[in-house]
Amino acid sequence: MATPVYSGAARTPQRGRPRDASRDDALRQAALEVMAEVGYRALTMDAVAARARAGKATIYRRWESKLDLVIDTCTQLAQQNLTEPDTGSLAGDLREFLSAFAAFLSGPIGKAAQALVGELPHEPELASAFRETFLTAQRGVLRRILERAEERGELRQDAPRGMAVEIAGAALIYRLMLTGDPLDLPFVDRVVDQVLVPLVAKGQ
Amino acid sequence: MATPVYSGAARTPQRGRPRDASRDDALRQAALEVMAEVGYRALTMDAVAARARAGKATIYRRWESKLDLVIDTCTQLAQQNLTEPDTGSLAGDLREFLSAFAAFLSGPIGKAAQALVGELPHEPELASAFRETFLTAQRGVLRRILERAEERGELRQDAPRGMAVEIAGAALIYRLMLTGDPLDLPFVDRVVDQVLVPLVAKGQ
Repeated sequence: MATPVYSGAARTPQRGRPRDASRDDALRQAALEVMAEVGYRALTMDAVAARARAGKATIYRRWESKLDLVIDTCTQLAQQNLTEPDTGSLAGDLREFLSAFAAFLSGPIGKAAQALVGELPHEPELASAFRETFLTAQRGVLRRILERAEERGELRQDAPRGMAVEIAGAALIYRLMLTGDPLDLPFVDRVVDQVLVPLVAKGQ
Repeated sequence: MATPVYSGAARTPQRGRPRDASRDDALRQAALEVMAEVGYRALTMDAVAARARAGKATIYRRWESKLDLVIDTCTQLAQQNLTEPDTGSLAGDLREFLSAFAAFLSGPIGKAAQALVGELPHEPELASAFRETFLTAQRGVLRRILERAEERGELRQDAPRGMAVEIAGAALIYRLMLTGDPLDLPFVDRVVDQVLVPLVAKGQ
């Protein structure tokens, strides 16, 4: 059974009036499109408002800054697109999560994700928020996949779990950002079967 | 014995007059500083000329575009900083090359490297030139390290070499671009000993 991965946007201020969820989604979609086109640094609340045909005040009632808007957009998108798998095997869980993550990165969201990741080194506040939300959540799913594998007796005693979690993320992001090779299912299968499972599982 | 890794800048046009190598280095240094500050997209030949206290014509005599200048700068810097190791063992060669590469990325060049990598998704021509020069050369070194290991009988028959080459680069770039964790010797040791050597070597 799949359960939601991401716990929602703790950074989003909750105000007294009821929120219109579909309006919020339209504003996030606009933020995503603007970010894919111009990147994080050049994104303005004005441009997002114009794209969504909304007033700037409407946006500021929901998010107090562009940092809040962008981090909330990432978190919500991840929550909608990535679920925590529980297939009953280490290889099955890794395959399901990483193929969903690969599809997420190489789909329409990919351009915005690339723009965001590319700007992390220049934007310390964005980098810190991105690490606390998106990256921490993604690592959490991978850690829980490994914990369940251990409960089933699948892991070696000395399995380097932290390294497995890091390499899983690294393999996907490197293709997205550097090599440009396809982030497809055959690649995910090779990462799981050749690298991750032998790295941590017993009797390989 | 260490031999140079990178074969120099094939893209740099050679003109009839003799080149002043130290002047070229000063111009490349200026390009690096400007790129670290403003990124590739916002870099102009004017800004590089001003930084190096040179005329714009001086730069254009050496490089026909900012793409040529930036790719040549990357290639020359890599040539000066990264050598191809031959320590006599797979683990030794990987450790020597990856620790030099980690130091290269986390040193003063790191900011410019981050700026460059961050912009690859938005700059197809830059991405293509970067892959043909820098990335191809880095993969070439790793492939030759694996070939020498095979000649010494260190590799498994079915060693997934392409995956090992990809994971080696991915592990370092992921730290540089995403997690912000240190690219230090203990990390390189863990990547070599926990991931790369078990992935391809016999009897692990």
